[in-house]
Amino acid sequence: MTTPSRRDLANAIRFLAADAVQAANSGHPGMPMGMADIAEVLWNDYLQHNPANPKWFNRDRFVLSNGHGSMLQYALLHLSGYPLTIDDLKHFRQLESKTPGHPENFMTCGVETTTGPLGQGFANAVGFALAEKLLAQRYNRPELAIVDHRTWVFMGDGCLMEGISHEAASLAGTWGLHKLVAFWDDNHISIDGNTDGWFTDDTPARFEAYGWNVIRNVDGHDAVEIKTAIDTALRSDRPTLICCRTTIGFGSPNKAGKESSHGAPLGKDEVAATRAALGWTHGEFEIPQAIYDGWKVGDVGRFREAQWNELFDAYAARFPQQADELTRRSHGDLPEGFAAAADAYIARLQADGPVVASRKASQMAIEAFAPLLPELVGGSADLAHSNLTLWKGSKSVATDDADANYIYFGVREFAMTAISNGLALHGGFIPYDATFLVFSDYARNAVRMSALMGARAIHVYTHDSIGLGEDGPTHQPIEHLASLRYIPHNDLWRPCDAVESAVAWKAAIERRDGPSCLVFSRQNLPHQPRSDAQLADIARGGYVLKDSNGTPELILIATGSEVGLAIDAAAQLGDRVRVVSMPSTDVFDRQDAAYREAVLPKAVRKRVAIEAGVGDFWRKYVGLDGAVIGIDRFGASAPAEKLFPHFGFTVDHVVQAANAL
Amino acid sequence: MTTPSRRDLANAIRFLAADAVQAANSGHPGMPMGMADIAEVLWNDYLQHNPANPKWFNRDRFVLSNGHGSMLQYALLHLSGYPLTIDDLKHFRQLESKTPGHPENFMTCGVETTTGPLGQGFANAVGFALAEKLLAQRYNRPELAIVDHRTWVFMGDGCLMEGISHEAASLAGTWGLHKLVAFWDDNHISIDGNTDGWFTDDTPARFEAYGWNVIRNVDGHDAVEIKTAIDTALRSDRPTLICCRTTIGFGSPNKAGKESSHGAPLGKDEVAATRAALGWTHGEFEIPQAIYDGWKVGDVGRFREAQWNELFDAYAARFPQQADELTRRSHGDLPEGFAAAADAYIARLQADGPVVASRKASQMAIEAFAPLLPELVGGSADLAHSNLTLWKGSKSVATDDADANYIYFGVREFAMTAISNGLALHGGFIPYDATFLVFSDYARNAVRMSALMGARAIHVYTHDSIGLGEDGPTHQPIEHLASLRYIPHNDLWRPCDAVESAVAWKAAIERRDGPSCLVFSRQNLPHQPRSDAQLADIARGGYVLKDSNGTPELILIATGSEVGLAIDAAAQLGDRVRVVSMPSTDVFDRQDAAYREAVLPKAVRKRVAIEAGVGDFWRKYVGLDGAVIGIDRFGASAPAEKLFPHFGFTVDHVVQAANAL
Repeated sequence: MTTPSRRDLANAIRFLAADAVQAANSGHPGMPMGMADIAEVLWNDYLQHNPANPKWFNRDRFVLSNGHGSMLQYALLHLSGYPLTIDDLKHFRQLESKTPGHPENFMTCGVETTTGPLGQGFANAVGFALAEKLLAQRYNRPELAIVDHRTWVFMGDGCLMEGISHEAASLAGTWGLHKLVAFWDDNHISIDGNTDGWFTDDTPARFEAYGWNVIRNVDGHDAVEIKTAIDTALRSDRPTLICCRTTIGFGSPNKAGKESSHGAPLGKDEVAATRAALGWTHGEFEIPQAIYDGWKVGDVGRFREAQWNELFDAYAARFPQQADELTRRSHGDLPEGFAAAADAYIARLQADGPVVASRKASQMAIEAFAPLLPELVGGSADLAHSNLTLWKGSKSVATDDADANYIYFGVREFAMTAISNGLALHGGFIPYDATFLVFSDYARNAVRMSALMGARAIHVYTHDSIGLGEDGPTHQPIEHLASLRYIPHNDLWRPCDAVESAVAWKAAIERRDGPSCLVFSRQNLPHQPRSDAQLADIARGGYVLKDSNGTPELILIATGSEVGLAIDAAAQLGDRVRVVSMPSTDVFDRQDAAYREAVLPKAVRKRVAIEAGVGDFWRKYVGLDGAVIGIDRFGASAPAEKLFPHFGFTVDHVVQAANAL
Repeated sequence: MTTPSRRDLANAIRFLAADAVQAANSGHPGMPMGMADIAEVLWNDYLQHNPANPKWFNRDRFVLSNGHGSMLQYALLHLSGYPLTIDDLKHFRQLESKTPGHPENFMTCGVETTTGPLGQGFANAVGFALAEKLLAQRYNRPELAIVDHRTWVFMGDGCLMEGISHEAASLAGTWGLHKLVAFWDDNHISIDGNTDGWFTDDTPARFEAYGWNVIRNVDGHDAVEIKTAIDTALRSDRPTLICCRTTIGFGSPNKAGKESSHGAPLGKDEVAATRAALGWTHGEFEIPQAIYDGWKVGDVGRFREAQWNELFDAYAARFPQQADELTRRSHGDLPEGFAAAADAYIARLQADGPVVASRKASQMAIEAFAPLLPELVGGSADLAHSNLTLWKGSKSVATDDADANYIYFGVREFAMTAISNGLALHGGFIPYDATFLVFSDYARNAVRMSALMGARAIHVYTHDSIGLGEDGPTHQPIEHLASLRYIPHNDLWRPCDAVESAVAWKAAIERRDGPSCLVFSRQNLPHQPRSDAQLADIARGGYVLKDSNGTPELILIATGSEVGLAIDAAAQLGDRVRVVSMPSTDVFDRQDAAYREAVLPKAVRKRVAIEAGVGDFWRKYVGLDGAVIGIDRFGASAPAEKLFPHFGFTVDHVVQAANAL
């Protein structure tokens, strides 16, 4: 083989994709074959990265929002020298391989975010671009642009049909994220066929309406046109959408341009026919050295990172404190002394005993912790004064202020949460977002993705029960506490007072490998007295808040606003009753068996759980012999003080239920 | 008072809203005060309705998508003669009043759909407009347009920021729903303040990109401009967005144009100041007779309905069968003989015993039932060939075919589900929609709204577990079965074979007052033998599929693809083991105590639940003494036959767990 052409380099992607899908007998060959030429130009001529150090902090971020085309990304990683072998590609979609069905950031080095649920990768990319903008405006100095990278995202028709594309594009436009470049794979095919019947938007006009720079009608198979488009994007002061006309399954004589190439192997014969059509004479998974040599961007990457290291050294010499802070943030470490300061704050709260709504306690915690944490960036979906997410140091990220840290997300819960995920995955940030608990529904799959990806994102949900009151059942969560707890690897906290609220915030901030949902009340909650040992045990998720005299005859288990009720009921039930406060069942369930037994002794079967949410969740603690005071129907519109008795949340009712055991 | 001006009529809305919010000390006065003039023109000059018969089938549908402005709708209903008294308005936001915080279709006569969760009302409205189009093209005949009404929707900035507005508007444009008219309350204020910082879209350009007719820059306080805009909309062959510049809290000297008028009472003094500013001399909740007389559209409504009744009689004389069918559909009744035909089909299946994936069984059920049910209209979010929602009689609703019944929703799960809700609430339809179970997340709050509103919508979710295989954890539901079951009033079915699948479909079709989620497997499932009694008991949600010899020593409880596993394990465990198939825990839990005791005798505490989803859900049946074989972490990308053993779903493991009890 002579020096390979650009098309040859792109064809290497095509056949790795077609062969891997064929070997797995499962997967999506059409998209990689369609976007191979675009990917080749981007990766070889523009992408700032170092395959030898995939975690280089100033690398460009590449996001495959149409994640079903995962083989495109695996082929790119392999060809450009990431630690992904041809053997890994041969194990595409096999158990525990580095090449799962969709790109997973926790399985594959070089994959920035997990994609597949459509549209979310695009929103993550907006988060990456926002992260870069915020770090740049905080840390860069004249001639010392130590934070300076782009975010590139591939997206398909499916991403663009999803509502989240609207929310995310709108914010990117408002924020003027000019280092964000999206490539639309305009192949006119989705799973059900030609998109004429269900996707007739004028997408370029739509993105212009968001304030984007839109480059129309680029031939996605012509490297020169692609380069021109990218060069234009690089000069833009707005985010750019490059609209690439492509042919899905490019090269396949019988399936190109058809939905049959989208989500199933081409078939042995058709792969052979495609080899013939594209003049690809190499065998299955066979890549000639000349092709590998053509993909030698790795060396450029090493050079680029070396250059950057020099720049960073110069920066560190002049701005040592900023350099240290950025380095610390990029490692995800908290400032020295954070834990001690937080503990001191918590101890003070325990002594002061403020009686406030836990949403207010949340704001107090932000106020206490945020000055220590420049990485804490967040906001609310247009409910700042209800969620109480603003603090004294809040400055909008729409500005170029060095301390910009507050995000006015607008009424966009889903993009908000996916953008948080992007901020967390980028590194350098601990993002928080907020809405009413009931509207976690709007963001639900992004919360799931936080958990799946191990993103250190904090989701703040206020107005956590019928205690929301007059807004009524559309706004009152019932099933949400249980449903969010059931998301694997997600930690939900529902604190009972200001102290537990601060502990929950501390736990969420300190949790490196996953998200936390912090759930707060609208209404005031009483303060609970605690010993030092009890105070320390809050962090274990569940603990004895009021113990019985001797072995308990009965245990009341409660969370949040129902803990006060449990304490009052216990006072009537006599001194053989224990009250367990359980702010986080997720964390409690991770404690060792001895601790769990100490809190909930197996022998004590008389148990009553109390929570203003779906009751059956609590059967895991009270079994068939216990009782639950919960809510298994929708709420109602009325003042909260009418609703609690209406739904059975009274001392009398708890006492009754306990006595009935 | 002399003859009231239009402004006087609109001011009646303003003060009813301000007074009611003040009385409740809770609510949103700003929007009703801002949109009062638009509402007055629409209701008095255009809306085709009959307050004396709010259920008149050919009425226009009015949707308040910005539902926090509920007092606007209540004021309109009261003033125009619906059964909503001034006393009802005085009980705004009180327990069990007809005037809850947000409009609730099940509480208030004349409210078409429940709104508040932003953007969904707009999507419901697209469903209403689609319903009208489909009924019109099926039933109308020359000179006999018996289905001919419009759908009007009010929406705010919040609705337009939400992603669902993108999905719904795109479909309305594609379908050319020209009888849909949306009014955008362009007041430049959302809860966090002036929207400049977070809502910079060129919304008119965006809607033009969807193929809408857009009318810009209408003064929302000028009746003449509003009328001109509506007249233009009536002539359009596309859906219309009327962009109305309004002042939130119009009339309030100190709060107009400010977010302070959005979500809190104006305050007694400010209400008084507003009275002075607008020259409204009447007391709290006081509406002079002249104003009521000005709102006398009721008589026009009666006349319109009478006219329509004549038209319908003429139609019925010429097209008796069609008239009967439409009447039946409008009542929500099923065709005579449906139940018998369905039962015969089910009995045949039981005899034939096909071994198919339950998604295939679902398609077979659609194929069997749909020819009997012209009201069955549905589709999939771009997964028709995976969800298996197409049947032989499918014809796209994008056409004007009389039998059009299939909806290519594109990748728009949220709007899909909210549009289903609109179809169901309109009447004349039993809608179904479909996606992968994991992507029910994207639509989650609309599923909740189906349940809250009692909408007869059928949500089909396929690929119901790790059995999905290679696509991996982003596509594999874990917590979804439990989470959907926890939505109050929602019935979830997860059938174990073709027979249970058909029973589930029948139950969903026959359920008049709420939604059903039908959950199906990707992979083949064995057929289960049953006696006639067992066959009949499937409809009870849970039943003894294989009984023990004498009182059971141990009970295995399973659903869906795990039922076969339970049967195989039982065969090894000996004849003292009972197997309970539990396709719907929701339905089972509604059975009388005697039946539940007969299936799960309290005395038998050795119980093992098996479901390829989150395990803790099953503690409600197995308690603390039983065992659960479930999945409490994320799935993985691999062929399904590797995943089931990997996650512990083997006969050996079940036998082990049973023996360990």
